[in-house]
Amino acid sequence: MDAPLSFETRATDGDARMGRLVTPHGEIATPCFMPVGTGAAVKAMAPDELWGMGYRLVLANAYHLAVRPGPELVHQMGGIARFMGFPGAILTDSGGFQAMSLAKINSIDESGICFRSHLDGQRLVFTPESAIEIQEQLGADIMMSLDECTAYPADAARARSSLELTARWAERSLKARRSAAQALFGIVQGGVYPELRKLSAGQITALGFDGFAVGGLAVGEPKAQMREMAALSAGLLPADKPRYLMGVGTPQDIVAAVAMGYDMFDCVLPTRNARNGSAFTSEGRISIKHARYARDGSPLDPGCDCRACRTFSRGYLRHLYMAGEILAARALTEHNLHFYSRLMRDAQAAISSGTYDAFARGMMAAGPDWEEGPDKATNNVA
Amino acid sequence: MDAPLSFETRATDGDARMGRLVTPHGEIATPCFMPVGTGAAVKAMAPDELWGMGYRLVLANAYHLAVRPGPELVHQMGGIARFMGFPGAILTDSGGFQAMSLAKINSIDESGICFRSHLDGQRLVFTPESAIEIQEQLGADIMMSLDECTAYPADAARARSSLELTARWAERSLKARRSAAQALFGIVQGGVYPELRKLSAGQITALGFDGFAVGGLAVGEPKAQMREMAALSAGLLPADKPRYLMGVGTPQDIVAAVAMGYDMFDCVLPTRNARNGSAFTSEGRISIKHARYARDGSPLDPGCDCRACRTFSRGYLRHLYMAGEILAARALTEHNLHFYSRLMRDAQAAISSGTYDAFARGMMAAGPDWEEGPDKATNNVA
Repeated sequence: MDAPLSFETRATDGDARMGRLVTPHGEIATPCFMPVGTGAAVKAMAPDELWGMGYRLVLANAYHLAVRPGPELVHQMGGIARFMGFPGAILTDSGGFQAMSLAKINSIDESGICFRSHLDGQRLVFTPESAIEIQEQLGADIMMSLDECTAYPADAARARSSLELTARWAERSLKARRSAAQALFGIVQGGVYPELRKLSAGQITALGFDGFAVGGLAVGEPKAQMREMAALSAGLLPADKPRYLMGVGTPQDIVAAVAMGYDMFDCVLPTRNARNGSAFTSEGRISIKHARYARDGSPLDPGCDCRACRTFSRGYLRHLYMAGEILAARALTEHNLHFYSRLMRDAQAAISSGTYDAFARGMMAAGPDWEEGPDKATNNVA
Repeated sequence: MDAPLSFETRATDGDARMGRLVTPHGEIATPCFMPVGTGAAVKAMAPDELWGMGYRLVLANAYHLAVRPGPELVHQMGGIARFMGFPGAILTDSGGFQAMSLAKINSIDESGICFRSHLDGQRLVFTPESAIEIQEQLGADIMMSLDECTAYPADAARARSSLELTARWAERSLKARRSAAQALFGIVQGGVYPELRKLSAGQITALGFDGFAVGGLAVGEPKAQMREMAALSAGLLPADKPRYLMGVGTPQDIVAAVAMGYDMFDCVLPTRNARNGSAFTSEGRISIKHARYARDGSPLDPGCDCRACRTFSRGYLRHLYMAGEILAARALTEHNLHFYSRLMRDAQAAISSGTYDAFARGMMAAGPDWEEGPDKATNNVA
C-alpha cells in the first residue's frame, strides 16, 4: 500500500532536525508538540483555538475513547478529527498506557491486557489486534502499536521480558493493520538499561513501521537517566522516519530532546498545570493562586501575545482561579499551549538558521523552575 | 451633575420601544439582554466572545464581588469592566438579592441587611449607603439601589412594609451617591398586589433616578401573575427613562415583556441551563444529555450560526457533557447566549419595522418548551 505518512527533513543542526510530516489531514511542521486531547477534547480548549495557535496535530487517548463514547460511535460520526471539529490530524496512543495506569488490571499476558474500565468496571481486553482495530475505527492519522510500558523501577529481567513482549505485539500490530490511510508507529522500550534499549530498538526498527516512538520514559526515573536513555535511543532510530519521544515533557526536556534528534512530543504538563493554576512564562513558572498576584495588573507573561496575556491581568486570573471560574482554566491553558507552540516554532527557526545550540542554552537558562521537580521525570500521566 | 446615562427611544410599536442607552463605556441598543457575570465573569465565556456576540452590557453581582475579591481590589485594578477585560459597560445589582438568598441573614432592619458571607462566614452589612459605596468602587456604569426583594408568597401587609422600606432605602441611596459618572436605578416592589405596585411605582418614580427597575418578580409566583404585575408596572414607569425587568427570563417572558415596554433584562437561564446541558434552539429546548443525541450528526440548532453550531454535532456535545469536559459548558453557553443575543436583535428589528406583534406571535409558537416549568417563574436565582 501507499505510505500513509511521509516525513522529510528540511534542515539539520547537529542531531536536531527541522522537517515536516504529511498526513491525510494535512502537514505538520516538526519538531512538533501535540496537545493531549484525552477524551476527544483538549481540556478547556476549542478546536479553532488550537488551530489558531498553530497546532496541526493533536493526541487523543484510545483507552479513554474506547471506554467512552466507544470507537464505533466515533467511526459513525466521521472519525476522531471530524468528531472533535478539529481541522488537523490526530495521533492516538494504543490505550495500553492508560489500561495499565488507570484501570484495574486483571492480567497482562501474551494475548494482551485484560482490565476493568475506570468508569463503570466494564471488562475490556486490549490485544495488539484490538488496539489497531480501535484506532482504525477512531480514524487516527497516526496509530501506536500496543506496548507494555515498563514501569519504574523494574529490574533488568523484568525490563527485558517486557520489551520482548512489546516486540511480539509490534509484529502482531503490523499484521492486524487494515487501513492504508493510517500510519502506524512502533515503540521502543527497555527501561533504564542501555543494552536493553539497543535490543529493543533493533527489534522494533527491523519492522515496517512508519515512525518510531521511545516509550517507558518520564515514568518516575531520575531526570538524568531519562535524558541519557532518550539520547541513546534517538541514535538507534532510522534518520528517515519521524522520532517521537512519548510523554515528554517540560520545556527543557523538549529543548534537550530536539537536540537529540526527536521530532514529536506530547505531554499533559501545559494543560494539566494550567488547570492547577500554574503557568509557563518567559520568566519561569508562575503559580497564579499566590497572594502576591492579587493586585498585580501585569499580564501572566509580559513577553507573550496570547489572548489571555493581551486581555487579563494576573490579579484577575488569580481571582478567577480562587473563585473556581471555568475562565481560569481556559485562560491558563490557552497561555501554556501558546507557550509550547511558540517554543516549537522557535526551535524550528533555530534549526533552520543553524543556531540551535544558542537557542537551547538560552531556554535552559531562562526558566529553571519550568522543571517539574528536582530530580524526577513523572510527566507521563494521563 | 451631568446625566451619567442617556436614553432615547428611536422607534415604538405599540408599547414596545427600540432605542439606545449611552453609558461612559459605550452605547447599548435596546431592548437588551444582559448576560449574568456573577463574580466578574460570565461563566465559561471570554469577554471577547461576549463582545463578538453583540453584548455591550453585562451584569455583575455586587454581593459576590463584595465577598470576593472585594470592591477595593476591583477599584485598584481599574474598575469592573477593565478588571474583566470587557470593552463594554457593566451594570451591578445592589447585592441585596443575594444577601437575602445566599447568605445567612442575621437581620434586616431599617438600617440595612446584616448577614454572613456564604464563603467564609464573615459578617457583613449592606446598607443603602454601603451598597452605593461598593458599586461606586466597582466602577459600574449602572448601579442599583438597595431594595428588599419581597419574597413569594408574602401577604399584603408584609409586601407593603417591604416596599415602604425599599422607598426609604431608595432616598438614602440617592443621597449617598458621590460619582457623577455612574447611573443609579430605583427598584419598584409590591409583590403580587396591583395596588401596592402602584404605590411603590409612585414613590420610586418621584425620586431622581436615571432609570427604573421592576423587582420582586420571577421569584416563584405563578407565571400569569408575574406577567400581570410586569405589565401593570411597566405602565407606571416614565417613558423617557429605561425600564429594567429584573431576573426575567425565558425567551417567551422577554418577548412578552418587550411588548409591555421594557428595555432591559437579565437572567441566569441561558448560562446556568447551558452548564446543565440544556440548549435553547429554534426548535425548542434540547437536553443534550439525552441518549437520542448520541449519534446525531446535526448541529444543536440547524438555524444557528454560532461557533458551537458551526463546529460541533449534537453527538459530540453529548459526549463532552457526559465526559464532564469544560468544552461542553463553553459550547452550550456560547450557543444559548448567541440565541438570546439574536432574540434581542430580532426584537429590535421587529419594533423598527412595526412588525413586533407578528414577531412575538412567531416566537411564542416556536418554542413552547423554552418555558422553565408549566406555571412557575423562578428564574431569578443567582
